[in-house]
Amino acid sequence: MSEYTGYQGNSLEFLKSKQISVGDSVKILADLTYSGIIMPRYEHSDDKHIVLKLRSGYNIGLEIENITSIEKIKSAEKIIEKIEEAKQVEGLPKILLLSTGGTIASKIDYRTGAVTPVLTAEELNSSVPELAKIANIDAKVLFSEYSENIMPEHWLKIAENINDYSKSDYSGIIVAHGTDTMHYTSAFLSFSLAGFPLPIALVGSQRSSDRASSDAALNLIGAVKFLVECKTNGIYVVMHQDENDETIACHIGTRVRKNHTSKRGAFQTIGNNPAFMIYNNEIHRNMKNDFFTIKEYKHKIKLNQKVALVKYHPGYDPNMLKTIIDSGYKAIIFEGTGLGHVGKNMYPMIKIANERGIFMGMTSQCIDGRVRMTVYESGRDLLNLGIIPLEDMIPEIALVKAMWATGNSENSNEIKEIMLNKIASEFST
Amino acid sequence: MSEYTGYQGNSLEFLKSKQISVGDSVKILADLTYSGIIMPRYEHSDDKHIVLKLRSGYNIGLEIENITSIEKIKSAEKIIEKIEEAKQVEGLPKILLLSTGGTIASKIDYRTGAVTPVLTAEELNSSVPELAKIANIDAKVLFSEYSENIMPEHWLKIAENINDYSKSDYSGIIVAHGTDTMHYTSAFLSFSLAGFPLPIALVGSQRSSDRASSDAALNLIGAVKFLVECKTNGIYVVMHQDENDETIACHIGTRVRKNHTSKRGAFQTIGNNPAFMIYNNEIHRNMKNDFFTIKEYKHKIKLNQKVALVKYHPGYDPNMLKTIIDSGYKAIIFEGTGLGHVGKNMYPMIKIANERGIFMGMTSQCIDGRVRMTVYESGRDLLNLGIIPLEDMIPEIALVKAMWATGNSENSNEIKEIMLNKIASEFST
Repeated sequence: MSEYTGYQGNSLEFLKSKQISVGDSVKILADLTYSGIIMPRYEHSDDKHIVLKLRSGYNIGLEIENITSIEKIKSAEKIIEKIEEAKQVEGLPKILLLSTGGTIASKIDYRTGAVTPVLTAEELNSSVPELAKIANIDAKVLFSEYSENIMPEHWLKIAENINDYSKSDYSGIIVAHGTDTMHYTSAFLSFSLAGFPLPIALVGSQRSSDRASSDAALNLIGAVKFLVECKTNGIYVVMHQDENDETIACHIGTRVRKNHTSKRGAFQTIGNNPAFMIYNNEIHRNMKNDFFTIKEYKHKIKLNQKVALVKYHPGYDPNMLKTIIDSGYKAIIFEGTGLGHVGKNMYPMIKIANERGIFMGMTSQCIDGRVRMTVYESGRDLLNLGIIPLEDMIPEIALVKAMWATGNSENSNEIKEIMLNKIASEFST
Repeated sequence: MSEYTGYQGNSLEFLKSKQISVGDSVKILADLTYSGIIMPRYEHSDDKHIVLKLRSGYNIGLEIENITSIEKIKSAEKIIEKIEEAKQVEGLPKILLLSTGGTIASKIDYRTGAVTPVLTAEELNSSVPELAKIANIDAKVLFSEYSENIMPEHWLKIAENINDYSKSDYSGIIVAHGTDTMHYTSAFLSFSLAGFPLPIALVGSQRSSDRASSDAALNLIGAVKFLVECKTNGIYVVMHQDENDETIACHIGTRVRKNHTSKRGAFQTIGNNPAFMIYNNEIHRNMKNDFFTIKEYKHKIKLNQKVALVKYHPGYDPNMLKTIIDSGYKAIIFEGTGLGHVGKNMYPMIKIANERGIFMGMTSQCIDGRVRMTVYESGRDLLNLGIIPLEDMIPEIALVKAMWATGNSENSNEIKEIMLNKIASEFST
């Protein structure tokens, strides 16, 4: 990184003419008065803005045209070189960071205001200097996809990569991942890598790392701290607990869901507290028992995509279920109403699915709470039609588990057994 | 109601032999000691149990075989006759109660432990003596269905029935309804009866009225109180706010969702407080403005069921979308990830749907929070493919609105306009 990393054209000229370089503390007069540190920019940035990290921790882009004056308060502390020295520190635990893309690995384009995936894992690592004090981090880019474009094939690739490190000297593995489908990926890793000896933390951010109010750095620092100190294994999602920067939550990878489109505390453990929380720079454990009941690691990195998630609602056309049955699906996860119901008009098709040996599991669109199919007539009817109640499994997690179960067995009794065998705290007892 | 209502065979003999009748306060020694009031039973009950209302308000069924002794503490107060007198009180506001079925109108079968719908609206009314002090209630049974079996045809029937009373002297209308799909029904009523001059409250219960810890009576009392005192119109869902019996919440019918399979406080207003809350026997208003912006009532009781709810997930097969397109659907509501995304593999089919003039709206499976499709590449791609962002509309509510919109217009521009025109607070601005 140079004194002007990422700056070019007008913005580079501007900084040079004012004898200001990246890392300098400055006071800027524009529409308001701003105090902060000049931040580097990423490749292909426009040349109209400079980026300032405010004392609040927020980054803002200021258009140079609107800047009336800029005054240097303190010169850059050459942070970068310090990091590079720090990275060599012997005796620090080693962490592997696998980057898959997403906001945590993206930058904002100040011309269009849009976010595009650009950062490599190493850039990500070096952009958070605090990491170097906790661990030596090796970074590897697996691919660069927003998580809405992450497909089951990507899950396999992530799992296979992690599997390569089962006998490594890492203290833990971070998977940097987009937030949209992070809980689907964490579920697949939880099943396919059950018993993996190292803790694994999926980390994302709701706001990109060069954007005001980014949660990227704190989530990443929290994840590294967690992996180094947690003294357990398993797959977790590590994100902000709420809107403030004081608490980082470590959720069990099969009990978590993205419950808000934009809040930093979007991820929540359903029906319980997160397994661990980090506050006051300490890790607090909320769960009594290890959530990973499987002690011997034997990877089962397989899946079958022929699993449908059917969310029942008034007006749902049973013929849609017919299409699923006729398309060779191996399993159907119902997202039923209430305690686990669907309308009577679905029964004839459910009967056919049952006769064809398709696994059918019931979850609830309520999301929180347990299905209980013995309370009402409808539930008992559905039990008689061969639908298996999946306790309090979250619908999306049940879907992933069924993809994994049908990938590992073609025998319908075995599939049922796998679905009801608790592997990674995917349901509570 | 007689002294022994509902009791027969052994349980009737038991009560007669002990000179105990319905309404008596008693002390019973069985496995434990119980104090409470003997409750009536419903037709076709078994003859092995008596039902006791404990001082806590909970009802329990006690097997007569296990009863060692029963002692009368105080004779029945002939509550029933009092109610019948009270029902004639002049000057009390009038409320119409329409019963559609569900737990609130059901009883538990003590032989099988299962719940079946039996109570008529009048039985329901007379089983909650407190109601008679607040209002004169007329009851009418529309049908008796658990709400998982309530179809869009039922929505039409409910709406048409309510419409008949637009010029009546009722202070408000209660719709007793199963909880599973209550929010779908409340949404349809909100759109099709927009501007209806009287307040309408959908009321359900999570536990049946003769079961321990039933919430039926309090929800019903809360709804009547609300309708009599709220001084507004609109469609609401009135249920327990949480597990305790102190607060009843009145949710806007388009902003509410069943978020727990079994808790009494299962219904929640998404992203906000309930519009009204009842505690300390008073109604507290939480919203500033009337939520019903349409002032002139003109019913639009129409719908088209050819609307699909597509919940995107990794592994979702775009061919399923093809089936929807080819089956003549008029609208597709996507339940996308995060801020409103689906995988790139969906684009070709979305393009076809757009070319066919199918309305496509985007909501988020996060449930809480607003879709924002200008932040990421994926969102902008989908906007270019013709998908309309539906703000913070709850997916299920957007589905119902699209059924209603396509029932009222076949013109795709008009459908889009209807979807984006706020009618009953279905989204916030």
